Amino acid sequence: MDILRVEGSLICTSRVDGLKQMALRVLRDQGGGRHVAVDPVGARAGNWVFTVSGSAARYAAGDFEVLTDLTIGGIIDRWEPPADEGPQA
Amino acid sequence: MDILRVEGSLICTSRVDGLKQMALRVLRDQGGGRHVAVDPVGARAGNWVFTVSGSAARYAAGDFEVLTDLTIGGIIDRWEPPADEGPQA
Amino acid sequence: MDILRVEGSLICTSRVDGLKQMALRVLRDQGGGRHVAVDPVGARAGNWVFTVSGSAARYAAGDFEVLTDLTIGGIIDRWEPPADEGPQA
Amino acid sequence: MDILRVEGSLICTSRVDGLKQMALRVLRDQGGGRHVAVDPVGARAGNWVFTVSGSAARYAAGDFEVLTDLTIGGIIDRWEPPADEGPQA
Amino acid sequence: MDILRVEGSLICTSRVDGLKQMALRVLRDQGGGRHVAVDPVGARAGNWVFTVSGSAARYAAGDFEVLTDLTIGGIIDRWEPPADEGPQA
Repeated sequence: MDILRVEGSLICTSRVDGLKQMALRVLRDQGGGRHVAVDPVGARAGNWVFTVSGSAARYAAGDFEVLTDLTIGGIIDRWEPPADEGPQA
Repeated sequence: MDILRVEGSLICTSRVDGLKQMALRVLRDQGGGRHVAVDPVGARAGNWVFTVSGSAARYAAGDFEVLTDLTIGGIIDRWEPPADEGPQA
Repeated sequence: MDILRVEGSLICTSRVDGLKQMALRVLRDQGGGRHVAVDPVGARAGNWVFTVSGSAARYAAGDFEVLTDLTIGGIIDRWEPPADEGPQA
Repeated sequence: MDILRVEGSLICTSRVDGLKQMALRVLRDQGGGRHVAVDPVGARAGNWVFTVSGSAARYAAGDFEVLTDLTIGGIIDRWEPPADEGPQA
Repeated sequence: MDILRVEGSLICTSRVDGLKQMALRVLRDQGGGRHVAVDPVGARAGNWVFTVSGSAARYAAGDFEVLTDLTIGGIIDRWEPPADEGPQA
């Protein structure tokens, strides 16, 4: 899974039926490239999210028949060292 | 899913049967690289499109038996910040 | 699908059974990197081809049980703007 | 499979149901890019791990229904030339 | 499929059950990056090999339930132009 930032929404009047009514977001990766993802969690512009790709993206969309290869899996609050999980074995 | 621009059509007299009669487009990515996609939506040269890859590409082609790993999912009209979706929570 | 150029054939005396008797070609990508693909169409050195990757590559090989992740899908004659397909809507 | 280093844990209050209660780690690749993986082996910050991607990632998570495309497959102790496996044929 | 060179073996005391007793090799790609692959053919350090990725990697391991996304498909003897296959059509 990768970490991307939401830039906005994608407007397409002509698209394949298989995407149904799913919202499409434009995301920027760490190198500045743009990607398009289905959004089942309601992310907003500026949010950092992690994305699920491949066949898992269809399951993540909550409907295996949605024709996506990239789905937002969650909105990131923060990340931190797992030091608070106890002493290292 | 990725954002690419249609450059033209691909002419192949010798190709595998599994692609059937699907039109093939040549697309340029954001770094200038060329890719080939099945086109079920009728995109034209100069159009910006988003593409679906992997096993979802076969479903997106409208026929799971089409042997593609990249299918045009829609023609992009524009993208915009989702600010018009209401105040941020 | 991607556009690559055939460089030659690959000779392997020790290989997994799942590739059966399929011919293996060495291809160069647009950045000069080398890849290996199963060739069901009879491509020759110097030919420009497009390749099918992922699970579709197994179907493209004409035998789902061939253990490939990259298969030549066709030999490219040329590509062109789709302007000859009629006026733009 | 790829070699990455664990940086920390990912905290997401809003995420898709399909990830269940699996711990998510932030990993750095050899170029410095960040990725997110499900962790079934209990890796800690600073550990070098190898990761399994694609549909195998779901199996590696110990539950095919976990919606991941990247799962930690093991913690690396070291790597070495296989010279101790006997003389070369 | 890609061309990589075997660097050594990977030693992991803590790894997911799904990899069973398969040997793991560390491979270097053409850009110098390291990858990890299951080895069903007995490759040795210094060998050039080609690798199979994705779901085909599981089949290539000789056991679909092995949780790999990269498997060595064969040891490369050499590659050559296919000129010896007869005159070009």
